[in-house]
Amino acid sequence: MEFWFTEDQSKDLRIGCRILETIHSETTPFQKLAVINTAQFGRMLVLDNVIQTTVKDEFVYHEMIAHVALNTHPNPKKVLIIGGGDGGVVREVVKHTGVEKVVHVEIDGRVIEVSKKYLPEISCALDNPRVEVIIDDGIKHVQEYKDTYDVIIIDSTDPVGPAVGLFSAEFYRSVSEALTQDGLFVAQTESPFYNEELITRIQKDVADIFPVTSLYLACVPTYPGGLWSFTIGSKIYDPQKADTTRFSELATRYYSPVVHKASFVLPPFVQNLLK
Amino acid sequence: MEFWFTEDQSKDLRIGCRILETIHSETTPFQKLAVINTAQFGRMLVLDNVIQTTVKDEFVYHEMIAHVALNTHPNPKKVLIIGGGDGGVVREVVKHTGVEKVVHVEIDGRVIEVSKKYLPEISCALDNPRVEVIIDDGIKHVQEYKDTYDVIIIDSTDPVGPAVGLFSAEFYRSVSEALTQDGLFVAQTESPFYNEELITRIQKDVADIFPVTSLYLACVPTYPGGLWSFTIGSKIYDPQKADTTRFSELATRYYSPVVHKASFVLPPFVQNLLK
Repeated sequence: MEFWFTEDQSKDLRIGCRILETIHSETTPFQKLAVINTAQFGRMLVLDNVIQTTVKDEFVYHEMIAHVALNTHPNPKKVLIIGGGDGGVVREVVKHTGVEKVVHVEIDGRVIEVSKKYLPEISCALDNPRVEVIIDDGIKHVQEYKDTYDVIIIDSTDPVGPAVGLFSAEFYRSVSEALTQDGLFVAQTESPFYNEELITRIQKDVADIFPVTSLYLACVPTYPGGLWSFTIGSKIYDPQKADTTRFSELATRYYSPVVHKASFVLPPFVQNLLK
Repeated sequence: MEFWFTEDQSKDLRIGCRILETIHSETTPFQKLAVINTAQFGRMLVLDNVIQTTVKDEFVYHEMIAHVALNTHPNPKKVLIIGGGDGGVVREVVKHTGVEKVVHVEIDGRVIEVSKKYLPEISCALDNPRVEVIIDDGIKHVQEYKDTYDVIIIDSTDPVGPAVGLFSAEFYRSVSEALTQDGLFVAQTESPFYNEELITRIQKDVADIFPVTSLYLACVPTYPGGLWSFTIGSKIYDPQKADTTRFSELATRYYSPVVHKASFVLPPFVQNLLK
């Protein structure tokens, strides 16, 4: 007998993964949560039937959302991560030895607990002494802090249900206020093949608030279409002009200083979304 | 009732597309051939149950396999295309007005006929007066021609069944002999996430024959993992050093001169496959 996990990536597109073992499954106060061992990608975190991360390909997303932003800032000391309860972004952020404090705000504590237990390769830095984990609503958190963070990383789920507010202009204004005077934020902003209107709207909203707005790309195999976008809003520093000679030496598999620069080179069809 | 087309991208991974209409289906002397209208990607060409191209995303693959190679050569006049019976590569090649002759060798004439009928946006250049279509085995064709082509484009199916020979060192030697003294070839060389050993082996085989060997990447949503690799073997011209100021102005949606350069920037995990 074969067992398969199927994600509806849209009403017209599905991805299916052969299951070796269902390791964990529960319904939290916020969402359905599962960890599955798949034949293709190894252990996989699934929220509300959507693949969040897998042991095999998580390095692409986590490295690319963390290091582009952190290396753009010349001296990030205090970093806020919203979402990403699996701990993958935390793991990448603590690779930057200059970062003194990482505040990790995740709305669903069960994601953190389950990731600690079943995804140790990803969650391994959650107990790092520089990391403070807060179980709370990220939107509320940024509203409460002013002029506090050098870099804010928004590692949200898709813009449906609880994560919708993390894609709003109002939220980006709170993020701007929670950032220091030379701060910057990065957010995952979905697929340029499937979420064209969202990307166009976010780019406009962020550009209304931040002097520097940039979109960059990476290819994540388990996300719909592979090609994935990230948006940076920055008060001063331009990620495309960052001086790569001062970048930290990092143990990475997808990110590198040249990949940093190349990720901002957009195909014309993506460039057109930003006009 | 809903109807779905499912491709087994490996024994452990599937992609499913909701079908609006099955437009055509037959078994040719070489393979099973179908054209399906899908809700997500529009019309789709399927060979032996593997997605070959779709109206929605074909521009990525066809532009990237054609223009990187053609713009690397300063003056390509005679171009050979092996495979690609849908005509997408032919359409891109004839955009280069300096190209005088395109020889298109496809083993399965039915792919061409069906593409002409049901995929006109892709096959539209197959009747161009500069194009000669030959129904024959591409391996045999390159063995019969010496010092003939400036650029050879190998638009093969996956390395199973009839296409296996198109991924062999012996074939690359024939390709080298069929090229002019400053010629170069490009081939699609599968996914760096799923076909690591193949990419490593091809890179070695090509480097044994050609002074310049380069791998580059593009993201094709309907191919497994999105991220896709192409390998160039060149006698003289280095695609990474190509002078973008002399590139033809091309109407493209994915390719551009800056994308040309950026596509050779490889993440460390891909770089490691080439060592």
